[in-house]
Amino acid sequence: MQQLLQQLRQELGDCVRTDAATLQAHAGDKWYATALPDAVVLARSTEDVSATLRFAAKHRIPVTARGAGVGYVGGCVPVQGGIVLSTAGMNRILEINPADGVAVVESGVLTADLQSAAAARGWFYPPDPASRKESTIGGNIATNAGGPRCLKYGVTRAYVLGLTVVLADGRILHCGGRTHKNKQGFDLVGLFCGSEGMLGIITQATLRLIPMPPARAALHASFPHFAMAAAAVQNTLQSGHLPCAIEITDAFTLEAARRHLGSSALPAGARGHIIIEIDGQEDAIATELEAIAEILHTGGASEVVYARREEEVEAIWQLRREFSYSLKATGLTKLNEDIVIPRSHLVELVEFCEQMQKETGIPVACFGHSGDGNIHTNIMVLKDADGRDVRPPADALVHRLFDWVLAHGGSITGEHGIGLAKAPWFPQAIGHTAINLHRVLKSALDPQNILNPGKMGL
Amino acid sequence: MQQLLQQLRQELGDCVRTDAATLQAHAGDKWYATALPDAVVLARSTEDVSATLRFAAKHRIPVTARGAGVGYVGGCVPVQGGIVLSTAGMNRILEINPADGVAVVESGVLTADLQSAAAARGWFYPPDPASRKESTIGGNIATNAGGPRCLKYGVTRAYVLGLTVVLADGRILHCGGRTHKNKQGFDLVGLFCGSEGMLGIITQATLRLIPMPPARAALHASFPHFAMAAAAVQNTLQSGHLPCAIEITDAFTLEAARRHLGSSALPAGARGHIIIEIDGQEDAIATELEAIAEILHTGGASEVVYARREEEVEAIWQLRREFSYSLKATGLTKLNEDIVIPRSHLVELVEFCEQMQKETGIPVACFGHSGDGNIHTNIMVLKDADGRDVRPPADALVHRLFDWVLAHGGSITGEHGIGLAKAPWFPQAIGHTAINLHRVLKSALDPQNILNPGKMGL
Repeated sequence: MQQLLQQLRQELGDCVRTDAATLQAHAGDKWYATALPDAVVLARSTEDVSATLRFAAKHRIPVTARGAGVGYVGGCVPVQGGIVLSTAGMNRILEINPADGVAVVESGVLTADLQSAAAARGWFYPPDPASRKESTIGGNIATNAGGPRCLKYGVTRAYVLGLTVVLADGRILHCGGRTHKNKQGFDLVGLFCGSEGMLGIITQATLRLIPMPPARAALHASFPHFAMAAAAVQNTLQSGHLPCAIEITDAFTLEAARRHLGSSALPAGARGHIIIEIDGQEDAIATELEAIAEILHTGGASEVVYARREEEVEAIWQLRREFSYSLKATGLTKLNEDIVIPRSHLVELVEFCEQMQKETGIPVACFGHSGDGNIHTNIMVLKDADGRDVRPPADALVHRLFDWVLAHGGSITGEHGIGLAKAPWFPQAIGHTAINLHRVLKSALDPQNILNPGKMGL
Repeated sequence: MQQLLQQLRQELGDCVRTDAATLQAHAGDKWYATALPDAVVLARSTEDVSATLRFAAKHRIPVTARGAGVGYVGGCVPVQGGIVLSTAGMNRILEINPADGVAVVESGVLTADLQSAAAARGWFYPPDPASRKESTIGGNIATNAGGPRCLKYGVTRAYVLGLTVVLADGRILHCGGRTHKNKQGFDLVGLFCGSEGMLGIITQATLRLIPMPPARAALHASFPHFAMAAAAVQNTLQSGHLPCAIEITDAFTLEAARRHLGSSALPAGARGHIIIEIDGQEDAIATELEAIAEILHTGGASEVVYARREEEVEAIWQLRREFSYSLKATGLTKLNEDIVIPRSHLVELVEFCEQMQKETGIPVACFGHSGDGNIHTNIMVLKDADGRDVRPPADALVHRLFDWVLAHGGSITGEHGIGLAKAPWFPQAIGHTAINLHRVLKSALDPQNILNPGKMGL
């Protein structure tokens, strides 16, 4: 292998790294598992990626692509060694073009940087994964990333018009284009969105931008029962409102937040909480906020707090982030599962989690994107007397949770993907015929199985 | 073949038809080419489709799926004979579920029927192809249908959550599901959207519904120059408005409309015209309409007509339909090409068409979805002294148009698909590597090439 890598270095120069620090820095993502690659290629261009894959195909060397490496499912862990190919250095915004409503970017551009560049011209790139300040567009596309605003605006896929992709044998594919509609043949762009680096490596993207809504506003509301908060979500939607985001939080998380932030942060006795953000034309926002607040009051909200100025809206989202920090502040490790359920099962989900908690003593905290049923369900790992994580009971709870979710028509992942972490449940989740089709597609596009091998259990 | 079909009839009963009238009625779509199948299967269920494909796979018989047969590109012409499988009879709406924000329908449901059923519950299925009263959901998915409202709401793909698909060997695949987010593996749902019956046959769909916007309003405006109308489109978007639709019409079409409707229908000297529809909350609509009207006036509109009441809005869309009828009223055959260009090239496109018209004497009429650059470009076929169409010069113009569109970063089809009609330009449109990938996918999913063979030039 070392001799082979020497050849690659001769071809590509010092973007091929084999020093221990670089290998270590590219061994994994935010999931716990890691594996050291034999080499890291810090790609500077589509041509670098193409040369790497031609070389890898010739010598049957595994190539694991990564963007910023901030995924949650071990998707970029090089489990079979070989080459880790990072596109993080390919971070040029090539074009922001309001007249065509497009942005053209290299795949290593941070999502938040693209959003800022578009906003500076009055345009909007809606997908907003929580990681957007540190995750790349390429990673977002490879995982078809979501976020709170997907309720109104849809996931990453809805904004990808064209891609440059390097195929397993090194050929460079341009698919889609720069038009907002395109019905030229099969949906190749869609095939690569969410393919987790297993069908090709994305190096450039043409993205759809939309006009920036001139105004946004938000409110948050506390309820004495979680079921009342969930009912308020349904009533808001049923009344013809399509907010950009509706976030919901359960009693366990609220209690942790009160401990973390002080008791004045949230009303005493709040056992359900929602945050609603709306956007649109300036004049419309205030009226719609009132109408939604009225729905929440009627639905039994104990407190409704408005945010009309930008810094007030930001303060509400800061509160949302604090919910997450509050769970971390418990000192416990949390297993964050991004399950999705049909929206009507929201209350049942939380009751099921409370029941699991009662039975096992393991805390389970639910909060997330209630509008689309994508609830981040955090199973907290208890510690033994020596302060070490006791994983098996928590892992068993994850099993029970996934069984319940699948039995209720849900999905075991709405945003994070399958990678390594969810591979054990993948066949149960999608069934035998769909697994078979995954194998057919994988072997059609990557016959030597060198692109991110060992993921999704394929 | 007749003996084989007798076997199929024994299995499926009288939904297998071989009478001349049924064969003739299933020989084509709205494009000119037709071909007679050997048999028609009027499927009643997913199981019928599965049985038909198992049988066809065993005997290597081509199967061409069709919904209502109202496509524009010959996509369901059974060019190699065999079986035409119609899902038009599978037209049950199985569920409209506001609590989950989904509809579950068989693939033969007419799109307008689904929309009415959803609207009756206060919910909205946005995709609105012009054919929606006669085209099926299955056909809409197989062609990833668009429509005017896609500017704001996206194409059919954005509303498909789950599919039941019968694969080439008769296996039944369930992919996606009923959750609004789903990152379980590759995007199989997307693979079948727009696949024109060549990778599998769609029998059931779970569709995303969104809350029905409580109000809509529209306006139309005439301009003394087309370029001013195109600039008004850009200014509207740049000012932070995202209408559901922005339709534009060129001078040739307006002149035909004045002749057809009478001179009072449109201001004298109108050489460009736009229709803008907005939707949202009741209070917001009036204010936003005023703001947009102001932009149009500033941009030189000679007349701006508002529509706030539902029947006034409908009257504006009726005017839009009359534009199309006006062209038909010229008595000439029109070749309706649904090209797409990056929005910034709108004026150049119309100037190019006027130039072609000057050079050849063949009228070219442009109108369509300006917001997303999807302009229906109608090349009018002149007649000889005996009243017969003279096709070759018009066909040559289509060639020139497609060359120009592709040279300007456009797409030769935004809504209709490739089918037979656009197959000759398909390799030029997407390039060698993408064509190769189409072949790889086709042969991976349909190794015997029995699903709608001969389309897309594959």
